[in-house]
Amino acid sequence: MRLVDEGLELLDQRLLPGEQKALLLTSGEQVAQAIEQMAVRGAPAIGITAAMGVVLELRRAAASQTQARELGRVFAAVCERLRATRPTAVNLAWALDEMARELEPLLADGVASAELCAAAERRARALQDEDVRVCRAIGAAGAPLVPAQARVLTHCNAGALATAGYGTALGVIRSAAEQGRIQEVFASETRPFLQGARLTAWELARDRIPVKLITDSMAGALMQREDVDVVIVGADRIAANGDVANKIGTYSLAVLANAHGIPFYVAAPLSTVDLDTPDGAAIPIEERASEEVVTLAGQRIAPAGVEALHPAFDVTPARLLTRIITEQGVVGPPFGPALAALKRP
Amino acid sequence: MRLVDEGLELLDQRLLPGEQKALLLTSGEQVAQAIEQMAVRGAPAIGITAAMGVVLELRRAAASQTQARELGRVFAAVCERLRATRPTAVNLAWALDEMARELEPLLADGVASAELCAAAERRARALQDEDVRVCRAIGAAGAPLVPAQARVLTHCNAGALATAGYGTALGVIRSAAEQGRIQEVFASETRPFLQGARLTAWELARDRIPVKLITDSMAGALMQREDVDVVIVGADRIAANGDVANKIGTYSLAVLANAHGIPFYVAAPLSTVDLDTPDGAAIPIEERASEEVVTLAGQRIAPAGVEALHPAFDVTPARLLTRIITEQGVVGPPFGPALAALKRP
Repeated sequence: MRLVDEGLELLDQRLLPGEQKALLLTSGEQVAQAIEQMAVRGAPAIGITAAMGVVLELRRAAASQTQARELGRVFAAVCERLRATRPTAVNLAWALDEMARELEPLLADGVASAELCAAAERRARALQDEDVRVCRAIGAAGAPLVPAQARVLTHCNAGALATAGYGTALGVIRSAAEQGRIQEVFASETRPFLQGARLTAWELARDRIPVKLITDSMAGALMQREDVDVVIVGADRIAANGDVANKIGTYSLAVLANAHGIPFYVAAPLSTVDLDTPDGAAIPIEERASEEVVTLAGQRIAPAGVEALHPAFDVTPARLLTRIITEQGVVGPPFGPALAALKRP
Repeated sequence: MRLVDEGLELLDQRLLPGEQKALLLTSGEQVAQAIEQMAVRGAPAIGITAAMGVVLELRRAAASQTQARELGRVFAAVCERLRATRPTAVNLAWALDEMARELEPLLADGVASAELCAAAERRARALQDEDVRVCRAIGAAGAPLVPAQARVLTHCNAGALATAGYGTALGVIRSAAEQGRIQEVFASETRPFLQGARLTAWELARDRIPVKLITDSMAGALMQREDVDVVIVGADRIAANGDVANKIGTYSLAVLANAHGIPFYVAAPLSTVDLDTPDGAAIPIEERASEEVVTLAGQRIAPAGVEALHPAFDVTPARLLTRIITEQGVVGPPFGPALAALKRP
């Protein structure tokens, strides 16, 4: 993801691994659609992308010589549009709140559009740079939890593609790999969008970290035959009590890990922790279209007329987590007080 | 599946639900390849298909006026070829053993090829007819276990397409539906071959039994929100102690059902129970090609060079089963003595 003079260059993740092609987005609406249609996904990444969407929209306002008194309305409208794209990952709202914290005093002062634009761009770039540092800190904090010669199972993609770079769960795996601790990573393919097969396998193969693909249904059998030492996943929202919303299938993995006595780690920045959400029951779970399940690579895989459920996320209760890995360090149960202490030091 | 004068007509299940096209097979080798390549699958169905393969090969021997003294070799060769196609489902070996029991006395008597052929055809047709009766008996035995307004989860396809008709797990569901007990069936899509999406959803939709498709990873979340009353699956081999080999993903579902206090039923004919296999550890688990996981609908879904694991089955230990449903009735734990009593009355 790269903010340039012409707009926002964004790798279209839907085309990976077959094709590496960047979209050039020039408006907040285009960014909103890219997020909705999953050209970009991953909680930290969509937060930063949304912040860039604000920049693009303010640039448009500047280019059309929008009056200072109109800028507040423009800013509010683009934030509202972007905030509505996907409900589960709290990083989206968090990043827009960060932009608001920066820009609202300027708007109140009635600054000109060029000045507002420059401030928005500085803040959005800072969010992006900060996210890479945060991911590296998560990796450093989590690596010691990974045993020597570890066989690690991860789900979906919590990698460089889901963040500004390096990744959260994959940040821990990368950091552990740099220390020579990774024997093999099992990437569950993550139906329906196949983020594990398309994105995680791609990232790890590029980094020469040994990776084997599995279907989501194989995780239990792998654990049963003692081929998995640790499970590490990312998160889309962590409630105040430690309940974790993450990609659909995460809950099943947590139950299976628990049944087999395998440590289950969640790696996420503190921006994913939402103290205003008391527990998992309060996390909105996005329901996406049946069509995204019943068609694959343009072909229908189910009979005409048959519909699919498509919750995009599920909630893993805190009791199934071994540790949560953040950029400020690793916390264990009881998660509520530990998370509160990190967020409100 | 239909034995006609020209050969064996076999619906090519790989093309469903998009296309209903029958293969016409005329030799044991063609039948072996159809089984290996999964044009036909499902433990009871591949057993009957293999028996038909024996018929086709004996017909060829008859047509080429093979001498009576050569027929034993022909029979042994086709049985060996068919037996080697897939290792996990014991019904394949069972059906070939049934054919041998019928034909070996005739071979010892040195009967002519036409007579041997006629006997083989009678026995194979009887196996097919018997399987439909067995499935209906399984359905009748299992239906009372299904509560009123049941929301049933099933995996893979243990339906008419996996048997000579009616199905095992789907036999129970059909029988319960006839009694008005089914509110909804959740069919897990069953990667990599998508038997749930392509076959189970197709069968149930044709029978107007309400069906919703889910990805394999959604089962846990569905159980967590109390949307599943009972899980019913088929089996490829049941060991003497009650351990069950079935389609990969079954074990994960059993662990999840157990964790949520949801009954977990296995429906299978007694021909699937193998008293010579002491427990699950002794069941050979077929490993299929990585290619079948990393390509989908002709497209590669993983980066070049990345390989997948592909165990086609897993083993669910007897302790996770609530009941096993057979044509001779329903058995509960301890399964070992109960299964032995049914098999050796």
